[in-house]
Amino acid sequence: MKKHNFYAGPSILPQEAIDDTIEAIKDFAGTGISLLSISHRSKEFEAIMNEAEALFKELLDIPEGYRVIFLGGGASTQFMMVPFNLMNKKAAYLNTGTWAKKALKEAKGFGEVVEVASSADTLYNYIPKGYTVPADADYFHITTNNTIYGTEIKYDMDCKVPLVADMSSDIFSRPVDVSKYVLIYGGAQKNFAPAGVTFVIVREDILGKVERFIPTMLNYKTHIDEGSMFNTPPVLPIYTGVQTLRWLKKLGGVKEMNRINNAKADLLYGEIERNKLFKPTVLNKEDRSIMNICWIMNDEYKDLEQVFLKYAQERGMVGLKGHRSVGGFRASTYNALPLESVQALVDVMKEFESKN
Amino acid sequence: MKKHNFYAGPSILPQEAIDDTIEAIKDFAGTGISLLSISHRSKEFEAIMNEAEALFKELLDIPEGYRVIFLGGGASTQFMMVPFNLMNKKAAYLNTGTWAKKALKEAKGFGEVVEVASSADTLYNYIPKGYTVPADADYFHITTNNTIYGTEIKYDMDCKVPLVADMSSDIFSRPVDVSKYVLIYGGAQKNFAPAGVTFVIVREDILGKVERFIPTMLNYKTHIDEGSMFNTPPVLPIYTGVQTLRWLKKLGGVKEMNRINNAKADLLYGEIERNKLFKPTVLNKEDRSIMNICWIMNDEYKDLEQVFLKYAQERGMVGLKGHRSVGGFRASTYNALPLESVQALVDVMKEFESKN
Repeated sequence: MKKHNFYAGPSILPQEAIDDTIEAIKDFAGTGISLLSISHRSKEFEAIMNEAEALFKELLDIPEGYRVIFLGGGASTQFMMVPFNLMNKKAAYLNTGTWAKKALKEAKGFGEVVEVASSADTLYNYIPKGYTVPADADYFHITTNNTIYGTEIKYDMDCKVPLVADMSSDIFSRPVDVSKYVLIYGGAQKNFAPAGVTFVIVREDILGKVERFIPTMLNYKTHIDEGSMFNTPPVLPIYTGVQTLRWLKKLGGVKEMNRINNAKADLLYGEIERNKLFKPTVLNKEDRSIMNICWIMNDEYKDLEQVFLKYAQERGMVGLKGHRSVGGFRASTYNALPLESVQALVDVMKEFESKN
Repeated sequence: MKKHNFYAGPSILPQEAIDDTIEAIKDFAGTGISLLSISHRSKEFEAIMNEAEALFKELLDIPEGYRVIFLGGGASTQFMMVPFNLMNKKAAYLNTGTWAKKALKEAKGFGEVVEVASSADTLYNYIPKGYTVPADADYFHITTNNTIYGTEIKYDMDCKVPLVADMSSDIFSRPVDVSKYVLIYGGAQKNFAPAGVTFVIVREDILGKVERFIPTMLNYKTHIDEGSMFNTPPVLPIYTGVQTLRWLKKLGGVKEMNRINNAKADLLYGEIERNKLFKPTVLNKEDRSIMNICWIMNDEYKDLEQVFLKYAQERGMVGLKGHRSVGGFRASTYNALPLESVQALVDVMKEFESKN
């Protein structure tokens, strides 16, 4: 039976990128050596590393003055690397969910942290607006997509202090005006690559302004100076990431991707709202994520939750269970998830409705 | 033409582990989902994570009271995580090469660092002996194998202060008495797994004794408490690592591995000493690495260095060029390198001698 992969991350990658990875594991770039056994200093892998930065710059139209680096340790490591490198005294954070809160908590080890707004009171089901960012903050940190709660900031905001964004789960899902940010980071394991690599897009002139001692591996400058090769990088995740970006480029880039992502989201939100059994958790349409779509049973059908999960699972739907803090269902509709998978899910929802 | 992979790292892995990884990328554990796209929270991957720790414990005969965790960021990240977690005031380091020196340098950000001895004066071609470790050091740090210079501490020393070892490039090459160490760490990309994962074996009772603020991701306790799943772990490198350890177990474990590694090293050092063109860089036999074997041309044949490299390369020998700081040649003979590859290299050396 065909599986439809709705996992929240690690999540579906383009089949082309997976097939290319298998070929490279058999024989990397005609070297006669496996991608798993190749030196990161071989010219063949150095070409991949250069292509990774080049494709980021091209696909996201990154302006001059920015660098892209690839690190281990996940976005959770960035929660502390950001304040380590950028916070002198004070930073502002927008609390839009679990990951935003973790980033905020970590920053407290480095100075004063201002939570400008929070939607924790209603289980993070909206994006706060109308808050004020302190003018003397060293930076303002946002989490553009909230994987667990299905909300998303789908635009690039104007901000008077340097703007930092965790885009782990929506990078490459839409065109981004990178010039509005000083730093964008993310774990790879949604729209970019398999788990094990983290990207950081950073405007170089923002660095070198803090007094504190920064351990070598936590200093962005280390990795910029060495082209992400200060130490052995996560070779395979970067390779597969490059294949994913090649696929994205061929498909038409982030603008076309955004069109497809919106079509997928419209299809699924439409069914959730139409279907008598279900309702969405995020009511403000402008706050709804196009990457993680969350919904629950309507009150009168509460007892069917597990029944529907099992029903969908038996029809090849994988990873639909909502996060334990929200319950219900979550369909992650990342770049590589085809419209056909969303259609298959919608068909299952309709079918289940007709039987109940 | 068959390639013989002598890369210093990332380096050769068992073909079985590579083949198993390809199968898992096609369909992981019968889930119908690729290993590259599977959730780390799936029960199938959680089983792999548990097996990783269990195989470490079994193969290295790790006593009670120790935990094994798997992290991103490479051994270079451990250079600062070790002092972050273990140094109160003072630490002692043995300077046996580039990586030892980097670890030592990083520790200076956290307190007083005593270099108990160094072999830098002779391009690190021996392991210093007869030094004194200060009794009030919080720990003593050694690098058991020096990849660039081809020296190795092939025994577990008695030490009156807590002993910490970077075993990046010789873990699993011999039986280790783990009880003599409080912490052993290493990048995976030699005897364990492809690049992208780092292992830490730590005696739990050594933790929690420093006063300083430790960022969440840098605190060993975080990862112990969450079974290396505090954040998304590097899924594929861990999977391939487990396949490598299964292969090692089937082969007879670290004792048998050590027998084979010694046979490979004896064969190659024997030829280097016999062959009129070459000489070893490490003269003390007890200091010679069985993982990275370094040699240079005898003085009267200096001009043949590039000629030999090309000659060997044309016969399928990959990665033989010595590190730029040493010159000459380096054959890395990690666990997965078969005796046949060493024999093929020796044959090429003999052949080249007969022609010159």
